[in-house]
Amino acid sequence: MKKIINQPEEVVNDMLEGFVYAHSDLIERIPETGVIIRKQETPHKVALISGGGSGHEPAHAGFVGAGMLSAAVCGPVFTSPTPDQILEAIQKADNGAGVFMVIKNYSGDVMNFDMAKELAEMEDIAVDFIIVDDDIAVEDSTYTAGKRGVAGTVFVHKILGAAAENGASLTEIKALAEKIVPNIKTLGVALSGATAPEVGKPGFTLAEDEIEFGVGIHGEPGYRREKIAPSKALAQEIVSKLKEAFQFKPDEHYGLLVNGLGSTPLMEQYIFTNDVGSLLAAEGLNVDFKKVGDFMTSIDMAGLSLTLIRLEENKWLDYLNVPTKTIAW
Amino acid sequence: MKKIINQPEEVVNDMLEGFVYAHSDLIERIPETGVIIRKQETPHKVALISGGGSGHEPAHAGFVGAGMLSAAVCGPVFTSPTPDQILEAIQKADNGAGVFMVIKNYSGDVMNFDMAKELAEMEDIAVDFIIVDDDIAVEDSTYTAGKRGVAGTVFVHKILGAAAENGASLTEIKALAEKIVPNIKTLGVALSGATAPEVGKPGFTLAEDEIEFGVGIHGEPGYRREKIAPSKALAQEIVSKLKEAFQFKPDEHYGLLVNGLGSTPLMEQYIFTNDVGSLLAAEGLNVDFKKVGDFMTSIDMAGLSLTLIRLEENKWLDYLNVPTKTIAW
Repeated sequence: MKKIINQPEEVVNDMLEGFVYAHSDLIERIPETGVIIRKQETPHKVALISGGGSGHEPAHAGFVGAGMLSAAVCGPVFTSPTPDQILEAIQKADNGAGVFMVIKNYSGDVMNFDMAKELAEMEDIAVDFIIVDDDIAVEDSTYTAGKRGVAGTVFVHKILGAAAENGASLTEIKALAEKIVPNIKTLGVALSGATAPEVGKPGFTLAEDEIEFGVGIHGEPGYRREKIAPSKALAQEIVSKLKEAFQFKPDEHYGLLVNGLGSTPLMEQYIFTNDVGSLLAAEGLNVDFKKVGDFMTSIDMAGLSLTLIRLEENKWLDYLNVPTKTIAW
Repeated sequence: MKKIINQPEEVVNDMLEGFVYAHSDLIERIPETGVIIRKQETPHKVALISGGGSGHEPAHAGFVGAGMLSAAVCGPVFTSPTPDQILEAIQKADNGAGVFMVIKNYSGDVMNFDMAKELAEMEDIAVDFIIVDDDIAVEDSTYTAGKRGVAGTVFVHKILGAAAENGASLTEIKALAEKIVPNIKTLGVALSGATAPEVGKPGFTLAEDEIEFGVGIHGEPGYRREKIAPSKALAQEIVSKLKEAFQFKPDEHYGLLVNGLGSTPLMEQYIFTNDVGSLLAAEGLNVDFKKVGDFMTSIDMAGLSLTLIRLEENKWLDYLNVPTKTIAW
């Protein structure tokens, strides 16, 4: 393992310190915790919090700020934060209008965020949540019952964050979340495994000419290994699976997120984006929103994912387009 | 070589198509060229252009937009664009107030941008330029007489871009460029070589536990290979070299850019940033501006660089802080 780190067991702490040092205008860390919270919260609005294991940077701390998250709870690498850490985030982020939690669908996260909700409710803080399960690759997985939550979660942060900033109530945000999440779907391809610093070797290995479709962001198994093919063929496989999942109809409106998994250069991400664009145009779809880059990574995994959101309401597109004051959107 | 591409000889074309597809609200491509130009140019302002070989994404096309570049000329991978491509950019970008070119110090770039300047002057377009040579690693290099131009170039785009947006004349921009460039210095460390798609294998290789200080963004040799050390030790080496180059004095004001070289996760970049921050604080410096992420990459090279700019005037900090409308700043 060749990494720019100090003690492997200190990577999350050191990273969060660096994060706060670099972005002290926007965010701060609740001392002794993995909670990154925004400095200027909009008064009386619903607080939006998210989090999970670390290793997915810039998610989630990079999305803390005006127009997106109020706080991010950063657990150990690939490991859910504890309920007391999540509770700290809830307590500090609450402005009296309640707290809404965006949870990726992993059993540990679901359990710990739910426990934190119960603890917060004992303190009379109103808490509600949505579970994001956008990854269409597989049903059930290493750490998950049902589908996994992956890069599409960032669309949830953005849309709900804009709604919260706009004054939506906890009930309204819950209703919006329940409408958007079934319209967000993701599928990815990995070219290499990720090396967690405390493990010291890749979570899985692929042959020199091999790729795997549908790998999870913690290295959970995907649905097929095969020889690497040109970008056009990879885009074809991924778009055809999304087509099936969405049941594309001509003239529908979509937003797109091409997400690098950590060590895939922008050059490859844009080449893939171009191929995806051609395929979606051939389906007669309108792609009204596009984003390309590293948003939800798996440490140093090579590969990328494609997320689509079906924009059933114009309002969702408006929410995607509102400027934010965050580090990584 | 395992990459998400189609034909290796088409990577730049395919990437630029993807770039334009994803960001058609901000930029367009001059057809049949490698020139990316902003859609809404501010009238009567000096046009700022930059460019060079591709493979450094998001540089330079990601910095085209209000407050930074007017156009970016994207050559083949690691190869200067031709004078006629640069001339196209000059012609299209000029608003009557002249064109200022930001050139990284590589012999091919310097020659071709200079030739384009001469061609443009024959058409009565006023053109001036600055050569950026921020890399303190080595004097003279594989493709360069004198020091190389690397990530510090992005600070030049930002500061001059803000000044141009603010109505500075060509003469004023030239004077500002000549003041800031000697105050920008960079040093990096590589953990792996970059693989150019048409070459198919890394430009150089390092042993499993080896790093190299001062490698250039095209894989040009650095000044020392040694065993990988903790982030703190890497930061110590790089900051001490920058200290010597700047002759740090307590209470001076600086801006900082930690730049990932392509496949180094944000986790490592922020850990390194934290270590750099401690060292600069120990020197008694004020670090008023901080930026962390991939800005000037070397395809899929692992590693990072640290750029410092000595902020001799408050105005420079203001220029760094003005919001832009670009993809990657």
